[in-house]
Amino acid sequence: MSKTNPGNFFEDYALGQTIRHAVPRTLTDGERALYTALYPSRHALSASDEFARGCGLPRSPLDDLITFHTVFGKTVPDVSLNAVANLGYGDGRFLKKVYPGDTLNSTSEVIGLKENSNGKTGIVWVRTTGRNQNGEDVLTYCRWVMVRKRDPETPAPAPILPDLSTQVQARNLVIPENLQFRDYDFGLSGDPHKWGDYEIGEHIDHVDGVTISEAEHMMATRLWQNTAKVHFDVNARPDGDRLIYGGHIISLARALSFNGMANAQSILAINAGVHANPSFAGDTIYAATTVLDKAETSESSVGALRVRLIAGKEPITTAEIKESNGKHLPHIALDLDIWVAMPK
Amino acid sequence: MSKTNPGNFFEDYALGQTIRHAVPRTLTDGERALYTALYPSRHALSASDEFARGCGLPRSPLDDLITFHTVFGKTVPDVSLNAVANLGYGDGRFLKKVYPGDTLNSTSEVIGLKENSNGKTGIVWVRTTGRNQNGEDVLTYCRWVMVRKRDPETPAPAPILPDLSTQVQARNLVIPENLQFRDYDFGLSGDPHKWGDYEIGEHIDHVDGVTISEAEHMMATRLWQNTAKVHFDVNARPDGDRLIYGGHIISLARALSFNGMANAQSILAINAGVHANPSFAGDTIYAATTVLDKAETSESSVGALRVRLIAGKEPITTAEIKESNGKHLPHIALDLDIWVAMPK
Amino acid sequence: MSKTNPGNFFEDYALGQTIRHAVPRTLTDGERALYTALYPSRHALSASDEFARGCGLPRSPLDDLITFHTVFGKTVPDVSLNAVANLGYGDGRFLKKVYPGDTLNSTSEVIGLKENSNGKTGIVWVRTTGRNQNGEDVLTYCRWVMVRKRDPETPAPAPILPDLSTQVQARNLVIPENLQFRDYDFGLSGDPHKWGDYEIGEHIDHVDGVTISEAEHMMATRLWQNTAKVHFDVNARPDGDRLIYGGHIISLARALSFNGMANAQSILAINAGVHANPSFAGDTIYAATTVLDKAETSESSVGALRVRLIAGKEPITTAEIKESNGKHLPHIALDLDIWVAMPK
Repeated sequence: MSKTNPGNFFEDYALGQTIRHAVPRTLTDGERALYTALYPSRHALSASDEFARGCGLPRSPLDDLITFHTVFGKTVPDVSLNAVANLGYGDGRFLKKVYPGDTLNSTSEVIGLKENSNGKTGIVWVRTTGRNQNGEDVLTYCRWVMVRKRDPETPAPAPILPDLSTQVQARNLVIPENLQFRDYDFGLSGDPHKWGDYEIGEHIDHVDGVTISEAEHMMATRLWQNTAKVHFDVNARPDGDRLIYGGHIISLARALSFNGMANAQSILAINAGVHANPSFAGDTIYAATTVLDKAETSESSVGALRVRLIAGKEPITTAEIKESNGKHLPHIALDLDIWVAMPK
Repeated sequence: MSKTNPGNFFEDYALGQTIRHAVPRTLTDGERALYTALYPSRHALSASDEFARGCGLPRSPLDDLITFHTVFGKTVPDVSLNAVANLGYGDGRFLKKVYPGDTLNSTSEVIGLKENSNGKTGIVWVRTTGRNQNGEDVLTYCRWVMVRKRDPETPAPAPILPDLSTQVQARNLVIPENLQFRDYDFGLSGDPHKWGDYEIGEHIDHVDGVTISEAEHMMATRLWQNTAKVHFDVNARPDGDRLIYGGHIISLARALSFNGMANAQSILAINAGVHANPSFAGDTIYAATTVLDKAETSESSVGALRVRLIAGKEPITTAEIKESNGKHLPHIALDLDIWVAMPK
Repeated sequence: MSKTNPGNFFEDYALGQTIRHAVPRTLTDGERALYTALYPSRHALSASDEFARGCGLPRSPLDDLITFHTVFGKTVPDVSLNAVANLGYGDGRFLKKVYPGDTLNSTSEVIGLKENSNGKTGIVWVRTTGRNQNGEDVLTYCRWVMVRKRDPETPAPAPILPDLSTQVQARNLVIPENLQFRDYDFGLSGDPHKWGDYEIGEHIDHVDGVTISEAEHMMATRLWQNTAKVHFDVNARPDGDRLIYGGHIISLARALSFNGMANAQSILAINAGVHANPSFAGDTIYAATTVLDKAETSESSVGALRVRLIAGKEPITTAEIKESNGKHLPHIALDLDIWVAMPK
């Protein structure tokens, strides 16, 4: 009997089932430095202890996406090892900042199941929660993946679809403990624009591009202990290409968005997200933002902006990123709907 | 007179000579994070402070191979700058865990010398010992290399071969201070298999593969301050290829072995090891383990497993890795005989 | 109106103008480890806490070039985003060591302006100063760049050229606080040569070479939050090549100089410097040093050596690196005139 992990197949999931993921991970200044080396990340809150203290925090927290990738990476061996496709994200909220020295764990609950009509695959919805060493929730989000069935003959379960709202309501956003932007330094942050300067419908082309190399996306993906073969092994796909982990594109887009949204210091929520088209080494990734909504928050100096963060393989000069049939244009890699926190 | 280091030639070594290697090195959380980015390393003991505390340690120690590479790297300018081949390792024991903040030094003693019949090269055996800032030994191992003679006319010394046993006896294994697996969490470690589940003769194909890029192996090799030209300079070899540092393959194999041996949390000893064939960027490395022996240890909750850790450029589906003439098959890169510690 | 940073054009600079650069940056053990992975850096003072304590420092400081790159990187969005060429450095002094945990900021003062005769570009001279979280100056240097005019029709300002001496006088060198080499360990440092062993006019070919990969130079450049497009985006230059950040070559040269000048533990000053020819991935970089001058310092155990640190795409076997017309030979990448500190 094999001792290696064969991953779970569609039949292995049951509604309400809770999966406790391996391996706990202590994050440090090392991960922080590597993040800066891997992505053109410049947001001051996660770059400077002094700046973070000026915003009420004890020191500079790790980038929110370090939290996301670490929590996500742990789910791969249990949730997506036999996935055919990573279909989407939704209802995600960042609940607590993570600091160097914190140790993260992940658990997932199965919240939806639906076999596909071809009988060979099914869709699994999970709600994943990341917790720190004190058992405090730091992040929760839903994700759905298409997973292979072990045996096409297995009868289909009754389909159960989770009731996922299309967005996190502004009133449910959690402002990180003690975070405030009352004495915010717009000179040091690198951008004079406040929350009030952004208008719903506004589209920002973030201008800069990054051409991806194999070494960078593999190092990043390993850093989050994401073990999916397709990212590392040229023999894992018929075309011999190494698929870039979707989260790598999320981080590139977020980092590139500094140029035009440098004051979006914190991600508060993930309303929805899809990896529209795959990316490979050699692709040059550009980013753009469309402002979708604005809201006040529980802290008067912090405004929330709902934005569509887009990544593509060409500059994204307009908010039109889909064909008339609703399909994303072929150069669009990421379509991510998030809430971010900005100084008012 | 040149101020650069020409390295030592065969004539420069004398039996009993002790070489004190430069440069002392403080290891930190930075090296820890880079190790995770460079190798698909997931063993919980070196990933999580909390998990390590559950196993009796003050915090998560650095991966044992960080210790090995750091101690080894210091020896290169004195031992292998003029080496034609790195012939083997033996009689190695890990004696003390290394933690972020520790500073390591290395010394080597010449324990054997034998000129080759061609008169142009000779074999040098050294015992290398790594020590921390308190002067405590953290690692000791033997290594032998084929080194060029400065002058073929120099008369050959009397051959002296060290008396190296083929393996470290189980009774001589050092269980790291305070390490115990009494309340081991097999859920968080990512693998349900205990020491008792492994049988002598069992072969485990670790399934996953990693395609190597130039940037990754060069960054890794530099991280250990290994200065051998062949790893970095395309002009250093006639074929224009950069030879991958053998230790890079050791770390890849060890990290890949997580999938099937996730509970082998610690390397206790290196019985023997050879780099069977060279590796280059573009190679995809796979790993396999054959269980050779089992032993109790001084700590009742910790079992020792003697395993043959193999790396190759194709999946290694059986324990047969040599041709009938005793030569390793051409796709085998590493044949390493080690003792590891597992929960009982 | 665009929210992205268009960078400054020649018309945007005024003599005496002070630019406060974004983004403050906390440096840690993570940056230290990455520096070792990216460059073959081995100088003991920045490798070992124990060695640094033996030299009077509280712990191992960050490599001086981490300070330089971090301070420099912040100036890019304000000074060189529209630069046609980075023309030179001068009058630079390292004033205080930077340690893990320190946070750096940069400001620049415009000290010279001169429009070029073509009316399309001009030269801007700035003095840049880096400061730590206590407001202490850690580094100051001058730099001049050729910058595009926004509008060729804008009238030229009166040319004002700064009075830059060709070198920092030895009496103005700042020996880092408490640094002394009284009990210096030449065994652990990796080199027996003292300050007194180097002669003016001596040329040292540092022998080793490093072939550069795209991933490495991009990671390094990002680590210093240098955002210039030409380093990252294959579409940013007509030839589709990614230009390597000049500072990457400086660090390669400095690290390679270990082999022959391992005891040059600290950079005290930058007298002058030019990036003679551009570098690209695939180039193999070699380094050489020519000793220009020697001086005593305020600390009797520390000698200062003025050296020309040269990087090139072929081994640099002689001090002749220019053609008869004064132009650098085509394989020369860097010509840097610095003061370094060595044990006497």
